[in-house]
Amino acid sequence: MKSVIRINRSRLQKNLKDLSRFGRGASGGITRESFSEADRQAKEWLIDLIRDAGLHARMDEAGNVFGRLGPEGPAVLAGSHLDTVPDGGMFDGALGVLAALECLRVIHEQQLPHTYALEMVAFSDEEGAYHSFLGSRAFTGSVNVGELEEAQNTRGIALKQAVAQSGLDFERLSAARRDPPETRAYLELHIEQRPRLELDQIPLGIVRSIVGIESYRMTFVGESDHAGTTPLPMRRDAFVGAAEFCLAVTDRIRSGPSGVVTMGSVTVSPGASNVVPREARLSLEFRDASSERLKEMGNQILEIGEHVARQRNLTFAADKLSSEAPVLLSQQIQSVLKQEADRLGYPYRVMDSGAGHDAQILAEKTEAGMIFIPSLGGKSHCPQEKSRWEDIEKGAQLLLGSLLKLTNEDQTTR
Amino acid sequence: MKSVIRINRSRLQKNLKDLSRFGRGASGGITRESFSEADRQAKEWLIDLIRDAGLHARMDEAGNVFGRLGPEGPAVLAGSHLDTVPDGGMFDGALGVLAALECLRVIHEQQLPHTYALEMVAFSDEEGAYHSFLGSRAFTGSVNVGELEEAQNTRGIALKQAVAQSGLDFERLSAARRDPPETRAYLELHIEQRPRLELDQIPLGIVRSIVGIESYRMTFVGESDHAGTTPLPMRRDAFVGAAEFCLAVTDRIRSGPSGVVTMGSVTVSPGASNVVPREARLSLEFRDASSERLKEMGNQILEIGEHVARQRNLTFAADKLSSEAPVLLSQQIQSVLKQEADRLGYPYRVMDSGAGHDAQILAEKTEAGMIFIPSLGGKSHCPQEKSRWEDIEKGAQLLLGSLLKLTNEDQTTR
Repeated sequence: MKSVIRINRSRLQKNLKDLSRFGRGASGGITRESFSEADRQAKEWLIDLIRDAGLHARMDEAGNVFGRLGPEGPAVLAGSHLDTVPDGGMFDGALGVLAALECLRVIHEQQLPHTYALEMVAFSDEEGAYHSFLGSRAFTGSVNVGELEEAQNTRGIALKQAVAQSGLDFERLSAARRDPPETRAYLELHIEQRPRLELDQIPLGIVRSIVGIESYRMTFVGESDHAGTTPLPMRRDAFVGAAEFCLAVTDRIRSGPSGVVTMGSVTVSPGASNVVPREARLSLEFRDASSERLKEMGNQILEIGEHVARQRNLTFAADKLSSEAPVLLSQQIQSVLKQEADRLGYPYRVMDSGAGHDAQILAEKTEAGMIFIPSLGGKSHCPQEKSRWEDIEKGAQLLLGSLLKLTNEDQTTR
Repeated sequence: MKSVIRINRSRLQKNLKDLSRFGRGASGGITRESFSEADRQAKEWLIDLIRDAGLHARMDEAGNVFGRLGPEGPAVLAGSHLDTVPDGGMFDGALGVLAALECLRVIHEQQLPHTYALEMVAFSDEEGAYHSFLGSRAFTGSVNVGELEEAQNTRGIALKQAVAQSGLDFERLSAARRDPPETRAYLELHIEQRPRLELDQIPLGIVRSIVGIESYRMTFVGESDHAGTTPLPMRRDAFVGAAEFCLAVTDRIRSGPSGVVTMGSVTVSPGASNVVPREARLSLEFRDASSERLKEMGNQILEIGEHVARQRNLTFAADKLSSEAPVLLSQQIQSVLKQEADRLGYPYRVMDSGAGHDAQILAEKTEAGMIFIPSLGGKSHCPQEKSRWEDIEKGAQLLLGSLLKLTNEDQTTR
């Protein structure tokens, strides 16, 4: 049995705190949208950090940042993303990137043997300000630049423009593609974003599957009218329709066996206090680990939208923006993670992920696995997002041990 | 019985069409917010038109535009406003301004006798992009510049800045005040904005009262959370709360004896599709011709907000933005309007106004009256806003006859 090689917890802690400065707002939350100025600065900072650690730094055509240790040829990859949701927390994504860097640094400093190269990565736009998992999709070759021509963020800024302002060439995004033999495996350490590990006092989760996500834009259109003179029964108020839809959908999904639904973005136009709303546009996404349940939820939601529109004399349009099927992660990597957790003496739980992660995109092309650590109160995508430093350390230790195992094992029999 | 002096219908028609060019959008709707570039251009155009008509043009400290005919001293005033709601129509406000100009022009061209001066006016910001009835309030002396320091439009542009960009001095807004003896009476011709006159095939309305309006900003605050990982029962989703509120309030008011309620502007933050909304902010206004009913509606609405917030573990805040009591218009002017309509042989109905108008502000300081003409389909505050040219002509004729009557009658016994 090997002795335990330790990561440097205070260094990881310092790096997480330093990174959290980029995009921090008055509320304490972090707004670091991919291809924004805060994101550009964070990437510059990361590249400096990678170089200071004695690793080879590189940014690819999709703005993904890599730090590499070791020879040419196939590599074992670990990482996550640098971007955040608006007013998000300091651990989502950042932890996976900086823990991977910490692991490579320890391996480099202690000159630990590794058969394959080791690489850390920070993928672009995991949160989908423009296009969910844009960076990891470009990396695995599942991005079609033609389909991204119209992509824009909620403020109407085109991806094309944002990418150009970051010094990248939109037309060459898909050149970020690297084919399977070059990546032997992918590991991602992430916060759980649910309260289950914390409630059960278990420091680690080993992820078995990632839920599927369907994402829509729902539009109700009625008629704008004067707010004082049109009697309520004569109105075709798009917002009242959207409100009824929101309430009915939330109640229906909540009373079902599983799954979640969220309407996070709402736009009402013309948007004046004294004009009856003509149009209401909602983002709607729903998630579940079962493909059948996803399909059922989708049907229920569309049915409700059509019913409400009929009752209120509105038109209803449901535009599907994206669809991610549930993903099973690598069995082999789950075994490696379990063996390492056992060896380190850390309790763990095998679990599903309710959130989407770059690992699900990598899973299409390579062996991919994920480690979770507890989120206090289950909070994430908000300034209150928090994890214990001792859990962060355990997660990084498990990542380090598993990376060493994956780079040294003979895996030609896979 | 006097013979009928006719307004020039085709000239009025041309002017209305010319004015509708300022701020016209792709949808055909007009967006001419007070103190915007479109508004500035429209005012310049109007001032040229006034001068071409041989009248004396003037813009006061609040951006109100006047055209005057006749001697120094007290004047009979007629007009309305030039600004529109976003994507509004070509008659709301514009008709009252241009019909008043047409009347003065006819009086001037035909050198009709008038004891008092006659004045036409286009008031600023009637629609309240920054502050409802700003122009007429400044004119009657009911504006306090100190209270407008924080005023801004829905895009966050400060009134202070907008006013400065129009070449006006924010600090001198209240210098627009003119005291009662200078204004003997005020007449406003306006579209009905309801379908009642059209349905009953009556070309004219003589307005008895204007509904009261209470205007609020309602804010629900919960907690932002990850859209995939937080189970529905654990969420504090501010938008779901706002949706329930909207639906319950609309149902409650609709089932009451009278009154309307509108939530026309909605902002959800942080506003990302994969984040549970932390905050939802709604504009809410309600109107009725009875003070008692207004009070009752207010209590019901606040009760619903507090109930929803309690049930959903949200906080709820109701900020009152403005409150207009119902206003009774001048009995004396109603008599003049009735006599003139009878003399012209035009059918009319005495009615209440569901919309607010500058006339209600003027009514605080002078004898004020209003004439309505039919709105086809009751449409207004939208591109579909439409009135028949023959009804417009009848309205302008009634305005002309009534102005002549008011400027020639001995009204010292009032």
